[in-house]
Amino acid sequence: MERVPILKIGDILLVSIQVDMSDQTALQLQEDLAERIVATGSHGVIIDITALDIVDSFVGRMLSTIASISKVLDAETVVVGMRPAVAITLVELGLSLNGIRTALNVERGMELIAAARADDLGHSDGVDDAGDTDVETTASP
Amino acid sequence: MERVPILKIGDILLVSIQVDMSDQTALQLQEDLAERIVATGSHGVIIDITALDIVDSFVGRMLSTIASISKVLDAETVVVGMRPAVAITLVELGLSLNGIRTALNVERGMELIAAARADDLGHSDGVDDAGDTDVETTASP
Repeated sequence: MERVPILKIGDILLVSIQVDMSDQTALQLQEDLAERIVATGSHGVIIDITALDIVDSFVGRMLSTIASISKVLDAETVVVGMRPAVAITLVELGLSLNGIRTALNVERGMELIAAARADDLGHSDGVDDAGDTDVETTASP
Repeated sequence: MERVPILKIGDILLVSIQVDMSDQTALQLQEDLAERIVATGSHGVIIDITALDIVDSFVGRMLSTIASISKVLDAETVVVGMRPAVAITLVELGLSLNGIRTALNVERGMELIAAARADDLGHSDGVDDAGDTDVETTASP
């Protein structure tokens, strides 16, 4: 069985998806990621999909699930490296990747996570305005 | 044809090898890497082989070639994430990965590249001691 490696870079976990995801591989990746987030105390997960020619509903759902799991474990998920053709196909298929943040490349993804983090910390430092803390860039349904 | 994605993180290019390398894929990776080094002016290449169960002489040679090409383009190459079993097999096969630096994980690899870089810059700043500038960790044949 293939296993997608998870790389730790500073405060962030980086996953580069290059193989076709089977049910097993996807489940394993979710488990591994959850474990690594807890073990390392990381606050960000970057998923690179540069190598993917297509993102179908299965992969889309997997990305959403990973984002949800990470969120519960206090980590922000950003999907990076989406090809233009993939984005077009996603929209044509009506898949909107709900709740998933995207960035052009790994560096921008890191900036996004750092910004979201600074924002969260800023809020918890005392300024308590109206409850909801992270609605900036998440896509609305 | 598979194409291995190259991720840019700050001053470093990161390649995570997850698929079996064919002749074509290996050649393509070497070309892509050389182009990206020149285009981005990167001074370090980190090759992650966490996902590889075996490193045979073909992959070993590919890693050496990449290291040589990078060196000519003024970039340091570090191979990270080698599994214990892979290291044992390499030694048993008598493959010594000549001229390739290794580190335990991506973070240590980045430190190694930063240190080598600082060292190089230090040398070129004026202190000229005995010619050879980078012999610290390269294995002798």
